[in-house]
Amino acid sequence: MKFCSQCGAGDLAWRVPEGDNRPRHVCGQCNQVFYQNPKIVVGSIPVWGDQILLCKRAIAPRYGYWTLPAGFMENAETTQEAAARETLEEAHAEVEILELYTLMNIPHTSQVYLMYRARLCNLDFSPGTESLECALYREDQIPWDRLAFPTITHTLRLFFEDRRQAKFGTHVGDIVYQDQAASFVLRRAKP
Amino acid sequence: MKFCSQCGAGDLAWRVPEGDNRPRHVCGQCNQVFYQNPKIVVGSIPVWGDQILLCKRAIAPRYGYWTLPAGFMENAETTQEAAARETLEEAHAEVEILELYTLMNIPHTSQVYLMYRARLCNLDFSPGTESLECALYREDQIPWDRLAFPTITHTLRLFFEDRRQAKFGTHVGDIVYQDQAASFVLRRAKP
Repeated sequence: MKFCSQCGAGDLAWRVPEGDNRPRHVCGQCNQVFYQNPKIVVGSIPVWGDQILLCKRAIAPRYGYWTLPAGFMENAETTQEAAARETLEEAHAEVEILELYTLMNIPHTSQVYLMYRARLCNLDFSPGTESLECALYREDQIPWDRLAFPTITHTLRLFFEDRRQAKFGTHVGDIVYQDQAASFVLRRAKP
Repeated sequence: MKFCSQCGAGDLAWRVPEGDNRPRHVCGQCNQVFYQNPKIVVGSIPVWGDQILLCKRAIAPRYGYWTLPAGFMENAETTQEAAARETLEEAHAEVEILELYTLMNIPHTSQVYLMYRARLCNLDFSPGTESLECALYREDQIPWDRLAFPTITHTLRLFFEDRRQAKFGTHVGDIVYQDQAASFVLRRAKP
């Protein structure tokens, strides 16, 4: 951010506004304060029998790696609508969104991931513009070393564990980066 | 948004960028695209025995109305840290954050509310700068007609219902505005 989007002035300061307790971009001319807040990434776990629908990324970051359909939530939609929309966009796949499955904090990137379990409605899927290919995988076929993000790896691990016990909860935890590796710290699991 | 915050140009257009499917602010000079995304509001339900800690708002909107401690999540924190921070800021109250209790979509205002159950650690609370007063309320004392937001009303209603059955789940739903009234549509309840 280099210019004030309200008045166009070029003297933005990074300082603590009056009455606040942390630094923000503040315009030196019109005093407008610009807040930056975490973004919500929403996605689905599309299930077809014992298989899960994955998408191979056609965009950066992690081009060529596999992911569950997920993306930034848009204004004026619900998290469930966002999950269904991302699944439609990335895999042209129609899903019925079920329960919230994981909430993962990523303070490192100021993101909150929300993944919903979902029922794939039919097999009429195909790669959207952000995917190279889409395919169904059984647990023993998941390309674990070719998954795009720790959130996807941990969501899938939890999912298969829960499925063995036929009991799905809502899992809340943090993705923590340490020594250049991302580990998942489960805060609370409700089995 | 009137000026480009990257190059300072004043000719921002509201149009669908190439490869996108919805209108954004796009700079006519440098082509920078500006995304606007939903904000996360995080709060806590601070419990002390059979009482809940509420705060009377000292700020707009809903000045003078009662709320659970909650506010906009900041970058680089987890949702649990945000819930504890808001409780400390608004009520100077120390809490232990427990499980995620409600996720409420408000597409109308492009917000997602996340409320955590919490244990109030001690009685050393007092109003923060955004509160006129803070007080503990039993269920039969809650000022239902003086609550600030539908999210607060519905979170408290669910909480007391669940407490009667001594069984707390994670409730996911939407706040829907219709005919100038806000109703709560529970998507999925996991009792």
